[in-house]
Amino acid sequence: MNAVVIAVGSEMLGPGRRDTNAEWLIARLIDLGIETTWRAIVDDDVSRIERLTRAAWGEAGLVVITGGLGPTEDDRTREAVARAMDVPLVRDPEMVERIHARFARLGRVPGPRQAIQADRPDGAEWIDNPLGSAPGIWLGGDGRALAVLPGVPAEMKAMFDASIADRLGASGAGSLARTILKIAGRPESYVDDRVRDLYATPGTQTTILAGSGIVELIVVARGADAHAARARMEEVSGAMRERLGADLFGHDHDTLASIVGGLLVSRKATVATAESCTAGLLGAALTDVPGSSAWYRGGLVCYADDLKLSLAGVGAGTLRDHGAVSEEVSRELAAGARARCAADFGLGITGIAGPGGGSDAKPVGTVHVALDDGAEGRAVKLNWPGDRALIRRRAVVTALDLLRRRLIA
Amino acid sequence: MNAVVIAVGSEMLGPGRRDTNAEWLIARLIDLGIETTWRAIVDDDVSRIERLTRAAWGEAGLVVITGGLGPTEDDRTREAVARAMDVPLVRDPEMVERIHARFARLGRVPGPRQAIQADRPDGAEWIDNPLGSAPGIWLGGDGRALAVLPGVPAEMKAMFDASIADRLGASGAGSLARTILKIAGRPESYVDDRVRDLYATPGTQTTILAGSGIVELIVVARGADAHAARARMEEVSGAMRERLGADLFGHDHDTLASIVGGLLVSRKATVATAESCTAGLLGAALTDVPGSSAWYRGGLVCYADDLKLSLAGVGAGTLRDHGAVSEEVSRELAAGARARCAADFGLGITGIAGPGGGSDAKPVGTVHVALDDGAEGRAVKLNWPGDRALIRRRAVVTALDLLRRRLIA
Repeated sequence: MNAVVIAVGSEMLGPGRRDTNAEWLIARLIDLGIETTWRAIVDDDVSRIERLTRAAWGEAGLVVITGGLGPTEDDRTREAVARAMDVPLVRDPEMVERIHARFARLGRVPGPRQAIQADRPDGAEWIDNPLGSAPGIWLGGDGRALAVLPGVPAEMKAMFDASIADRLGASGAGSLARTILKIAGRPESYVDDRVRDLYATPGTQTTILAGSGIVELIVVARGADAHAARARMEEVSGAMRERLGADLFGHDHDTLASIVGGLLVSRKATVATAESCTAGLLGAALTDVPGSSAWYRGGLVCYADDLKLSLAGVGAGTLRDHGAVSEEVSRELAAGARARCAADFGLGITGIAGPGGGSDAKPVGTVHVALDDGAEGRAVKLNWPGDRALIRRRAVVTALDLLRRRLIA
Repeated sequence: MNAVVIAVGSEMLGPGRRDTNAEWLIARLIDLGIETTWRAIVDDDVSRIERLTRAAWGEAGLVVITGGLGPTEDDRTREAVARAMDVPLVRDPEMVERIHARFARLGRVPGPRQAIQADRPDGAEWIDNPLGSAPGIWLGGDGRALAVLPGVPAEMKAMFDASIADRLGASGAGSLARTILKIAGRPESYVDDRVRDLYATPGTQTTILAGSGIVELIVVARGADAHAARARMEEVSGAMRERLGADLFGHDHDTLASIVGGLLVSRKATVATAESCTAGLLGAALTDVPGSSAWYRGGLVCYADDLKLSLAGVGAGTLRDHGAVSEEVSRELAAGARARCAADFGLGITGIAGPGGGSDAKPVGTVHVALDDGAEGRAVKLNWPGDRALIRRRAVVTALDLLRRRLIA
């Protein structure tokens, strides 16, 4: 079965906008053995949405449309889909009730147009939306289906995983298996050199992607059934795993923070942070992981230099002799985080994220990252160019990877 | 005139891939007064390329197709376009010569399939490619046009700027002007109610977009020239600005943090943070702004409850009597941040980001945000459902907006 993914929304055709929903959906569909053969982004014009829906339904086994399910005048997807399927749009009184009840629960009054969210093409089923007011729409039959989901990414993803994946699982026509290997602390070219010859393994396709200090190898394998596809995928990814050793930190949905969290749990240990140029980004990354309160204690954001002294206990002499951006200060930040937050490990970051503040000796991109473990600890210096956001993200990745490598050593 | 942009290439439908060519083209077309109404990414299948080209040509004044002009078996765009235009594909012997000459100049031997790059739909003109071997294709007439360019971004951009922009400039499509109005602290429906009637202003189009507590109004206006388009855009956005009052925080590239930073600079004031559930996200958001060291002091990440006491000076009695997620604790966090980081303003956040940790009295999504200014301060309670990331982002937006409204009061 092949799929077409259509995103509705004029705003996504503006400069600098992307449709991340489709990127996510395409990856999920591959997991289900469904290949996307085209995708489109269309403005809010009802005739154009209708035309593209018709074109998609004319050839694809599955059409997924996101966006245009809100209560405003711009939200015409319901109407366009009904037209494309040549059925009337009908209002479901029971859904009107449910929407009103939801607003009442939240102590809010629905707007006058809110009821249009209870309209659906005749014969369609609802897809429950646990996070918002717009229900999705499902039209199936003859082994084919069309699904309409809201454009809000969190709602769309929750609904796909809860309601669409299962309905599609039953289909099948050959299978795809897919995995992502994730590597930290090495440049893309280093990883590429180690595994490149495996890209040519028959029946598989490997893509290498790099960003913010993390390299990903996306391995897709095809087989007669799920078992065969999986075996072929395991063969290639297993060989890669062996060659990459400790540089490989995880796969698929793993993040560096989730891996670090798992390692800390298994060692019954905790971590705390002291950040200057990242100013909380490391704490935020660690606590992206649900349940992080079991192993993340807290931290100090020492953006101003005097707070490095008062909050983290960095020595005035250290700051004077070595400067705020130095290995010495990063180590004292890490030690201060560990002591003041009563943790087993402390991580410290200090650097120049730019665009201002650089010098010949310490150009923009100079970042010192340190780990304190009560013994000799570890320290790393980064000096890669990049914009402010990239320099800060790389510093966070480096800090997480420093702790990861210490925990598996 | 409206445009459709189609990118050809199976690889762009893989996970983690984007079509940056279309993003670039859409921005360039806006500068030329041409609005893109849909865009698509299609795999290498010749029938699908043909079908989408036909759908685009059936409605758009301009169709731009990128990719599929190489010399390999996958490169079928020439053939698909000829079919979609119902003309034969013909080989141009002069272009065969030119391609061979180019290879000779580079000291290389053309592959056996290289000559297919000299095929074009009957009646088409060539578009010179100064950087590569694949020429582009131009089909024009009756004030409409279809252009095919290579997928290699550098070649595509060079060819568009050298050969396409001028041909389109002559088409006299007028100009577009565009602005984004940004609103915080109000739901989408509230904003929509206030400005909806202005959407119908002739010659303009407005899109409303919401996410993470911020609502955007994207206003696009059309005019005979740049001046006229700008005047019309100003008319609509000016009227919206007036109605939205203090809820409007900025436009275009403004962020809440950059606006807050500007206000703090103008008042020679500083801010500090104390975060529980956001664990550094607020500090990171404030310091996304270059130059934030002038007005952001630092912060405390009090993830564990005992650190709320030891780092931020929250009272043990407050914590016991009201619980960690309470207005009282958020106010003491804000006061602690202000005092311990020696700032003029302190912001405190405490809440339940989920997925665990909720109760009937304090469900997931309950977040208390407080501002301390040394006087009575302010506090806000959020209780919106959502996933962990969304709840944390909304808390950050609420904290930034609380400070913004205090600074403009």
